[in-house]
Amino acid sequence: ARRGLGLGAVGARGAVSGPLSGWAGPGRASRRLFSTRNILVELEEGAGVAVMKMKSPPVNSLSLDFLTEFSISLEKLENDRGCRGVILTSAVPKIFSAGLDIKEMCGKSAEHYAEFWRAVQEMWLKLYKSNMVTIAAINGNCPAGGCLMAVSCDYRIMAENPKYSIGLNETQLGIVAPFWFKDTMVNTIGHRATERSLQLGLLYSASDALKIGIVDELVPEEKVLNAAAATMSQWLAIPDYARQISKSMMRKPTLDRLLTHRESDIQNFVSFVTKDSIQKSLQMYMESLKQRKG
Amino acid sequence: ARRGLGLGAVGARGAVSGPLSGWAGPGRASRRLFSTRNILVELEEGAGVAVMKMKSPPVNSLSLDFLTEFSISLEKLENDRGCRGVILTSAVPKIFSAGLDIKEMCGKSAEHYAEFWRAVQEMWLKLYKSNMVTIAAINGNCPAGGCLMAVSCDYRIMAENPKYSIGLNETQLGIVAPFWFKDTMVNTIGHRATERSLQLGLLYSASDALKIGIVDELVPEEKVLNAAAATMSQWLAIPDYARQISKSMMRKPTLDRLLTHRESDIQNFVSFVTKDSIQKSLQMYMESLKQRKG
Amino acid sequence: ARRGLGLGAVGARGAVSGPLSGWAGPGRASRRLFSTRNILVELEEGAGVAVMKMKSPPVNSLSLDFLTEFSISLEKLENDRGCRGVILTSAVPKIFSAGLDIKEMCGKSAEHYAEFWRAVQEMWLKLYKSNMVTIAAINGNCPAGGCLMAVSCDYRIMAENPKYSIGLNETQLGIVAPFWFKDTMVNTIGHRATERSLQLGLLYSASDALKIGIVDELVPEEKVLNAAAATMSQWLAIPDYARQISKSMMRKPTLDRLLTHRESDIQNFVSFVTKDSIQKSLQMYMESLKQRKG
Repeated sequence: ARRGLGLGAVGARGAVSGPLSGWAGPGRASRRLFSTRNILVELEEGAGVAVMKMKSPPVNSLSLDFLTEFSISLEKLENDRGCRGVILTSAVPKIFSAGLDIKEMCGKSAEHYAEFWRAVQEMWLKLYKSNMVTIAAINGNCPAGGCLMAVSCDYRIMAENPKYSIGLNETQLGIVAPFWFKDTMVNTIGHRATERSLQLGLLYSASDALKIGIVDELVPEEKVLNAAAATMSQWLAIPDYARQISKSMMRKPTLDRLLTHRESDIQNFVSFVTKDSIQKSLQMYMESLKQRKG
Repeated sequence: ARRGLGLGAVGARGAVSGPLSGWAGPGRASRRLFSTRNILVELEEGAGVAVMKMKSPPVNSLSLDFLTEFSISLEKLENDRGCRGVILTSAVPKIFSAGLDIKEMCGKSAEHYAEFWRAVQEMWLKLYKSNMVTIAAINGNCPAGGCLMAVSCDYRIMAENPKYSIGLNETQLGIVAPFWFKDTMVNTIGHRATERSLQLGLLYSASDALKIGIVDELVPEEKVLNAAAATMSQWLAIPDYARQISKSMMRKPTLDRLLTHRESDIQNFVSFVTKDSIQKSLQMYMESLKQRKG
Repeated sequence: ARRGLGLGAVGARGAVSGPLSGWAGPGRASRRLFSTRNILVELEEGAGVAVMKMKSPPVNSLSLDFLTEFSISLEKLENDRGCRGVILTSAVPKIFSAGLDIKEMCGKSAEHYAEFWRAVQEMWLKLYKSNMVTIAAINGNCPAGGCLMAVSCDYRIMAENPKYSIGLNETQLGIVAPFWFKDTMVNTIGHRATERSLQLGLLYSASDALKIGIVDELVPEEKVLNAAAATMSQWLAIPDYARQISKSMMRKPTLDRLLTHRESDIQNFVSFVTKDSIQKSLQMYMESLKQRKG
């Protein structure tokens, strides 16, 4: 009999259904919206796909409020059996996210820094281990923490605009990307490219990002969301359960490393950011940003 | 003196011989054949190279019998000092191997599933840690377990036939590739490509497989075996002992991971495959294969 | 406020200075030379960059003396707050380094072999963990231990001369690259390329080395040093402290593996090299080198 496990799969995907083919009930077609100050969620109930739009002008900085809302919104979708996939994108023109909000790292108490850092960790833990299909629709600049969000998704589509760049550029600011930023980057582009990237704080143009593998696909700017939706439907054709286990198998060791060292990672951040020299640098940097704005 | 370890090696390979240059005795030129129901072995004693031909039509499914014969044949060659390299290929047109035999996973006892899974493990352990040079001559479709066999060899040559594909496509069937399939794939194409590949159960065309590194070389279909033999003679020019230690250094941590978790891996498989929902899916899938056949 | 951590970095590198921007004092412009028998060091105090020139004709073999001088010279620079980067190159035409000196491995006592191997380890430990920016200016052949030195630097520029090659070719001589050579190579070109490379003892032409990622850049032979200096000034634009922590984060696990197993690694080498069969092979190999020389 022609009964090899793999062969049939070549053309017989439809043969497997029922218990393995996912959560979404049939025939529901309404759209649900919910929004916080910084995040707008549009859930297409028929497709089982949500679009999470970051809407915190001017640059979608990851403030404590932003991060908290992000984690709550994502968890809400995670627990919604009608949602199987999330497209993460920006509602602010020209920027995906500029990363961590420096204001949360300047002139505050050690307790505040610890709370902030825990929220950064929580955002990443929730996004990187999500059971949903996660696709980043990168429609603007994507440095530092913005890049972390993108590389934590399952797939990345970037606007082919030569003005946009992406990368973990912390080193250029005298800041060090924590080990789990590094781990996520190694999982995406490998050890050597990450080593060079982190040492130099490199920002890659969209086309270089594609070459080195930080993003998976470039499309014209106006087509980023449509391309993300098309890719999403390909990913949702895969039985959820097997896809989720496969994803978890790949990512669990990296997630566990932070879970094991979570408190010491917070302590590291607090003791780093409370240094006089670092506070001075960050304040000078904030001043320079204000002047550029003005 | 011109005595750097590396420099001489540039042109002086012939200088090292005697104790380091391998096992094969000189001047033996006969051919030995041995065959089981599913595997035909042709050992060229002069070259010290065996060709293992999988001959279980229609699709070289990895049944319990097949796997047992495979492991015994490979061990026989391993213990034969006259054999230094193995070329693994198919005697069935258009298919290398379709992977695990679904019939072994349907309607049988838990004991049977455990025995079957142990045989799958054994095949991989023997192939991945082989002291011989192992080359896959991929002359047909190569999904799932077939792909595992191929990526467990030292080198892969595939027929450049656009109809053939290769990949770990288990997810498309609602099945999850076990962690050691995943590990072997990560060792071959890296973390990111494996993550995407496993989540989507991707099958790659021969040319895409070359690009992503699942195979090392494409040749016209009728030249696959000759190309494998030519590559084999290059590999056999290397002193066996140093090559074997180098291979073991690269693969031992991956092998040890399964050896350490072998029993729990069997238990995982048994408890997965005995689920009602999985049995139902596999039976539906088998029905669909029968109908395609008819 | 426009206060994302990453965004500002896009164009505002100059904003961070003071405590984070490095060690070099301003306005010093003299050049210091110091030299041992095998190593010449030229330190440009204004730039904070040293050029280490290996000058042990005919092939810069890594003898015990050479290695000891190398480690001492590097440590001297490491402890010099006026030196932030090192360019490693050769003063001998057509050869970067031919690797370990076979004379140190032939006809000596077990104590000598142990001392020699410890010196090889020490060279690698110092180079791979250096806090300085390390750039290899590969102006000649670069096999075996020479390749190890190169891949232990932060960046590699090679002369695009088709006669030069680079690679860990130990296996071709019946010798096995130790696990930390292997680890360094995996960190540079990944698992699969390393596995093939070590099993076959591959030497890559400059252009193949670029393709596979052993080197980062090719330039005409006469421009290697200038290109290295230009790259160095880009790397030195990054704040030292953040770059050093990032580098250490990437390399510490690999360094720790040798530190943990240092004594057993020495024992392995001694028991390997004292084997009669290996001594015989190495002596034959040395004879063949002498004849080629004559």
